[in-house]
Amino acid sequence: MMAQQFETIALIGIGLIGSSIARDILDRQLAGTIVVSTRSEATLKRAGELGLGHRYTLSAAEAVKDADLVIVSVPVGASGAVAAEIAAHLKPGAIVTDVGSTKGSVIAQMAPHLPDSVHFVPGHPIAGTEHSGPDAGFAGLFRGRWCILTPPPGTDEEAVARLRLFWEALGSMVDEMDPEHHDMVLAIVSHLPHIIAYNIVGTADDLATVTESEVIKYSASGFRDFTRLAASDPTMWRDVCLHNKDAILEMLARFSEDLASLQRAIRWGDGDKLFDLFTRTRAIRRSIIQAGQDTAMPDFGRHAMDQK
Amino acid sequence: MMAQQFETIALIGIGLIGSSIARDILDRQLAGTIVVSTRSEATLKRAGELGLGHRYTLSAAEAVKDADLVIVSVPVGASGAVAAEIAAHLKPGAIVTDVGSTKGSVIAQMAPHLPDSVHFVPGHPIAGTEHSGPDAGFAGLFRGRWCILTPPPGTDEEAVARLRLFWEALGSMVDEMDPEHHDMVLAIVSHLPHIIAYNIVGTADDLATVTESEVIKYSASGFRDFTRLAASDPTMWRDVCLHNKDAILEMLARFSEDLASLQRAIRWGDGDKLFDLFTRTRAIRRSIIQAGQDTAMPDFGRHAMDQK
Repeated sequence: MMAQQFETIALIGIGLIGSSIARDILDRQLAGTIVVSTRSEATLKRAGELGLGHRYTLSAAEAVKDADLVIVSVPVGASGAVAAEIAAHLKPGAIVTDVGSTKGSVIAQMAPHLPDSVHFVPGHPIAGTEHSGPDAGFAGLFRGRWCILTPPPGTDEEAVARLRLFWEALGSMVDEMDPEHHDMVLAIVSHLPHIIAYNIVGTADDLATVTESEVIKYSASGFRDFTRLAASDPTMWRDVCLHNKDAILEMLARFSEDLASLQRAIRWGDGDKLFDLFTRTRAIRRSIIQAGQDTAMPDFGRHAMDQK
Repeated sequence: MMAQQFETIALIGIGLIGSSIARDILDRQLAGTIVVSTRSEATLKRAGELGLGHRYTLSAAEAVKDADLVIVSVPVGASGAVAAEIAAHLKPGAIVTDVGSTKGSVIAQMAPHLPDSVHFVPGHPIAGTEHSGPDAGFAGLFRGRWCILTPPPGTDEEAVARLRLFWEALGSMVDEMDPEHHDMVLAIVSHLPHIIAYNIVGTADDLATVTESEVIKYSASGFRDFTRLAASDPTMWRDVCLHNKDAILEMLARFSEDLASLQRAIRWGDGDKLFDLFTRTRAIRRSIIQAGQDTAMPDFGRHAMDQK
C-alpha cells in the first residue's frame, strides 16, 4: 500500500490503458475516489462489472467536476472533443493529462480549450499490448516502462512533479521532453514498426501464389512476430497515422531509402554489405535486454511458456 | 522412449538446429549412434562437453561413412562444399537431408555431387530462435512446428516416408512441396520479415535526431519486437539473401508497392483506408493462434514471464 496521492481521479476512457491505470490506482490506493467515464454504454457497464472505479458516468463533463487529476485515455483523434466537453467543468487547480501516442497534435487539440485555472501536463506511458478494451488491462502494465511527459513551457512545476510521482507509483520511470522531439522519437520506435507490421501482414494476405493457410502454418519462421503489432487497435492506429503525419512520413522515407539500398545489395549479391548490417543490428537487441526493456529468453520466452 | 529409427545418424553442423536435433534424437533414442561433425574445433569441443553425440570428428567425410541418415545443418551457402566432401564416402542406401531455409539453391548445390546410391531428400524444419550455436539448441524445438520436405521427382518413396517418420518423432507435422514453391512461401513468411526487421533496426541505428539510448529506452512501444529477428545469425541470413534472391526480390517489390500506397494514405489523410487495412490484419493473427503457431497471451506472454 502507498499513500493516497489524489482525492479524486477521473478516468476519461477505460480501454487497455485507462483500465490498467484504474487497477494500479486501486491496488496502490493512490486515490480516494475513481470516477470512470466513457462514451460507450457497453464499455461503461463492463467497467462497472470489473469494479474499476467508484463512480461511473457517460458524461465526461460530469466525471471531471470534483477531480484533482483527470487522465484522458482515448484515441488521439478524440482528444479535442474531450477537452471541449470537460473544459467548463474542470475544478480549479486540477491536473489534466493524457496518455496519447502523439503529443504535438494532442496539445494542439486540447490546449486551446483548457482554462488557465488548470494544469495541463500531456503524457505518454510507453507500454501496452496488442489487445484493447477494459478487459485487456492489468495491474503492473507500466512497471519498469518509461513514461514521457511533455509539459508546455511555463507549466506549474509542482503539477509536473505530482504527475511524475503518480507514474512512479505505478512503477514507471519518467522522462520529460518537448512534444516535437517526442513525436520524432515515437515515430521511429513505435509508429514505423506498427505501420511496417500492418503493411507486411497486408502484403502476405494479398498474395495469390502463396495461400493464407501456408502463411499461417509456417508463420513461426518469422512472420508471426509481425502479426502481434498488426493486431493492435485499428482506431488507435488510424488516429496515430493521421496525427503524427510529418514525423511518420520522414521515418518512412528513411526506411524506404535504406530498404532500397538493402534490396540493391541482395540483387547484386553484395554479401559483405549484408553481413555487416546483420551483425550491427544484433548489438541493439543486447542493449535493449540489458536495459530491462525486453526478456532475454529466446523467442520472447514462447518455448518456456509452451513447456509449462 | 520411442523405437530406434536409424542405426547411425551423422549430423553435419551442430548449431541451433543441429544441436536441437541431437538432443531430440538422444531423448527419444531414435538412433544407436550419433556422429557429430563441424568445421570448427571450438564448436566440436563444445558439442562434446554438451554430450550431443557418441562420436565427434572435424571431417564430414569421416562422419558419414557408416551413417544411415545424414543431416546437413549448415548455412545454405556451405551446402555445396559439404556435398562435395561427403559424396564419395556415403554409405549406399543412406538418406541425405538438410535443414536449409532455401531449397532450390541447396538442391542445385548438392544434387550434382551426390551418388545415385543414396536418397537425397531436402528438408526444412520451420522452427528456430534468434540464438545460434550448440548451446542455443534445446529438445522440443520442433514440437508442433511444420517441416517441409522437397524431394525431387522420382525420389524413393520409402526414403521420404522414413524421413517423414523421423520428423514426426520430433513432434513435427510434415508437408511436401516442390522447391520453387517452398522458396516463394518462405520468402514471404520468413525471409521478408527478417530483411524488414534488419532494415528497420538499421534505420533506427542511423538516426541523428533520435539517440540510440532513446531507441532502447522506449523500445517497448513496438520496436523491440523487430530486434529479436534482427539478432539472428548474420552468416545464415546473408546466405539466405544470396540464395533465394529471385523470390525475395519479388516479395520486396510487392511489399514496397504496398508501403507506397499506405504512405500515400497517410500523406492524404485517408483514414478509412488505414482503418480497413488495420482491421483486416487482425484476422490473420487470430488464425495463427488458432492454428497453434503462436501464443494467445498478450505481448507474447512477456508480462506473464515478468511476473514469475
